[in-house]
Amino acid sequence: MTDPVRSAAPGDTRRPVVGVVGGGQLARMMQQAAIGLDLELRLLAASGGDSAARVIPGTTVGDERGRDDLLAFAADVDVLTFDHEHVPQPHLQALEQAGAVLRPGPRALRHAQDKAVMREDLAAAGLPVPRFVVVTDVADLDRAAEHVGGWPVVLKTARGGYDGKGVWLVEGPAADHDAFRAGVPVVVEERVAFSRELAAVVARSPSGQAVAYPVVESVQRDGICVEVRAPAPGLHPDTAVAAQRLALQVAEALGVVGILAVELFELPDGRLDVNELAMRPHNTGHWTIDGAVTSQFENHLRAVLDLPLGSPIARAPACVMVNVLGGEDPGVHGALSHVLAHDPAVRVHLYGKQVRPGRKIGHVTIVGADMDDCVRRAWHAADALTRGRRG
Amino acid sequence: MTDPVRSAAPGDTRRPVVGVVGGGQLARMMQQAAIGLDLELRLLAASGGDSAARVIPGTTVGDERGRDDLLAFAADVDVLTFDHEHVPQPHLQALEQAGAVLRPGPRALRHAQDKAVMREDLAAAGLPVPRFVVVTDVADLDRAAEHVGGWPVVLKTARGGYDGKGVWLVEGPAADHDAFRAGVPVVVEERVAFSRELAAVVARSPSGQAVAYPVVESVQRDGICVEVRAPAPGLHPDTAVAAQRLALQVAEALGVVGILAVELFELPDGRLDVNELAMRPHNTGHWTIDGAVTSQFENHLRAVLDLPLGSPIARAPACVMVNVLGGEDPGVHGALSHVLAHDPAVRVHLYGKQVRPGRKIGHVTIVGADMDDCVRRAWHAADALTRGRRG
Repeated sequence: MTDPVRSAAPGDTRRPVVGVVGGGQLARMMQQAAIGLDLELRLLAASGGDSAARVIPGTTVGDERGRDDLLAFAADVDVLTFDHEHVPQPHLQALEQAGAVLRPGPRALRHAQDKAVMREDLAAAGLPVPRFVVVTDVADLDRAAEHVGGWPVVLKTARGGYDGKGVWLVEGPAADHDAFRAGVPVVVEERVAFSRELAAVVARSPSGQAVAYPVVESVQRDGICVEVRAPAPGLHPDTAVAAQRLALQVAEALGVVGILAVELFELPDGRLDVNELAMRPHNTGHWTIDGAVTSQFENHLRAVLDLPLGSPIARAPACVMVNVLGGEDPGVHGALSHVLAHDPAVRVHLYGKQVRPGRKIGHVTIVGADMDDCVRRAWHAADALTRGRRG
Repeated sequence: MTDPVRSAAPGDTRRPVVGVVGGGQLARMMQQAAIGLDLELRLLAASGGDSAARVIPGTTVGDERGRDDLLAFAADVDVLTFDHEHVPQPHLQALEQAGAVLRPGPRALRHAQDKAVMREDLAAAGLPVPRFVVVTDVADLDRAAEHVGGWPVVLKTARGGYDGKGVWLVEGPAADHDAFRAGVPVVVEERVAFSRELAAVVARSPSGQAVAYPVVESVQRDGICVEVRAPAPGLHPDTAVAAQRLALQVAEALGVVGILAVELFELPDGRLDVNELAMRPHNTGHWTIDGAVTSQFENHLRAVLDLPLGSPIARAPACVMVNVLGGEDPGVHGALSHVLAHDPAVRVHLYGKQVRPGRKIGHVTIVGADMDDCVRRAWHAADALTRGRRG
């Protein structure tokens, strides 16, 4: 394949066109980066009111998981990339067969779509994962638990889970379990006694160039990432390097193009286990918009177009991102005045989504010199936006 | 008038709507800021291919200087602001009479539209300006020159000039001069023997809150700003404070809302004279996108919506912006690979404009610790983009 961008001839005035499947906040934040480099984003979204559709001209409203809509959309773009990992494999393959350039490609994406395949392939590549067994029948649960070191175990449906959904902690033998209802394989894993969760975000281009962002600590609540500290406080330099190296190895082993986020368990002895993978800009990388020289969104676009990658280094000693979850007030703008007045340095990112209690509707970032100060200020802003005018 | 944003009631889910008149790069860069705060921008632009129209959904294509198109456009927005200062005064007044909220308003804007009015009102307010006389007839030139201290003098058409156009240096008596062709008043000014040009950019909101960005040095070539150094190297702290205070005084005296850029002459004895005013985000403030906590584009939007203003402080000891001028290669993307590979920390901002030799088609920014290093790297990137693939 001739690369659509690098092959630009002298005098060629065409701007590169990136098609994004899915109209969520990730596509929305890609648009801020695309404007700077004059890359044209086109969007396939379920609705013209979707987060990204509000800020990208000429959105195609269609079925993001529908074969025909995807093929028609792909015909007009140089490169296809994704706001989410929900496009079925057969459609991804049909797109490639039709000549579309998918970045990341189907083979890589499969590892973000199917936890059983991800665990198996990472283990086969010698990369550290929790002990696991893949089963399809609840009757095999006992033997699986024994195999991974005994009860309790964690069950994960191989496909369809996100943000804590599709994950269960099981304390002992069960004759029946919800995990098996969907009829997809279930990954039975040891419950890892981790000290904390880390994330290593890397960008990788088709030509193999890669950059690694500083390793962050991800604070979870009910299975949802609520806060990210960059860099991970007190992380041993050897562990930081190991985490970055691990993420780069995963990216190369799976042939990822674009951003790869590797969510990690840090174990008490400093070892790391891979928890989850995401092959797109990721919540644990949102801090990079304000806190790094090049944001993960810009580096995702640069990677999928095989443009040289930007510096991932941090702009300051500390950066904290806190997600803004929807509260009881359906309007989020009412609280903006308070939040902006209270802290003139707060960076607010709202996603233009309808507010529902508990839904991620934005994030705030504080960049500074002292991590504890950043944490306190970021939570103040996020909590105020959640409470809205009813706080 | 009830402020459209501050008056948001609990439960109000409407996002604030800002209408921008003009589809240039300033409106384009406002969109990056608007996305973060979930402010809805609407655009009135001459063409769907205009710089900002490429990145803002639902652009109204119409006559930016036409009364009817302006009135229709203003009817659907909370606040009207501007990418340029070319809307005629009678239309601005008609818009206000129709109930539109103009920020900045007609009275303030007049000082950015008419150099004679600007000079007269600043002088009346006791603010420092070069010696000047306003004349309408070339026959009055001799006496005017005498009045401002003798030849040579600078002639500026009161209205219609920009980027060095409408400005002439005149060495001695003339029976005829182009400056008088347009039939508008001509400002005759002393040629100020300045040491260098500075710019003080401030943001001011309707409620009177104001913030001042660090004072920068603006390097001009053929009357066009080509490079900005932030902060102005070697500037005496007293002069820096005086420049900021002067800009804040101008903003208050003229009732400016939004960004005001005050271009200044620094005199050999450290005194300052006001050269030009702009009442919109300005080329001398582009460095703030990458180099300040809050960009001038975000603070412009926050100001016109009377939201609390963001911190204007610099993120690093040095920041240099260099404009990218069009060269012989009509395609600018061809050189991107080289530029991004050469300096992974360069921040590139392309405006999506058709390339014409000498036209501003983008800018690059380097943020760093050492000013000379930033200057060298920024010029390398800008020159390479100008040369394109033909370099």
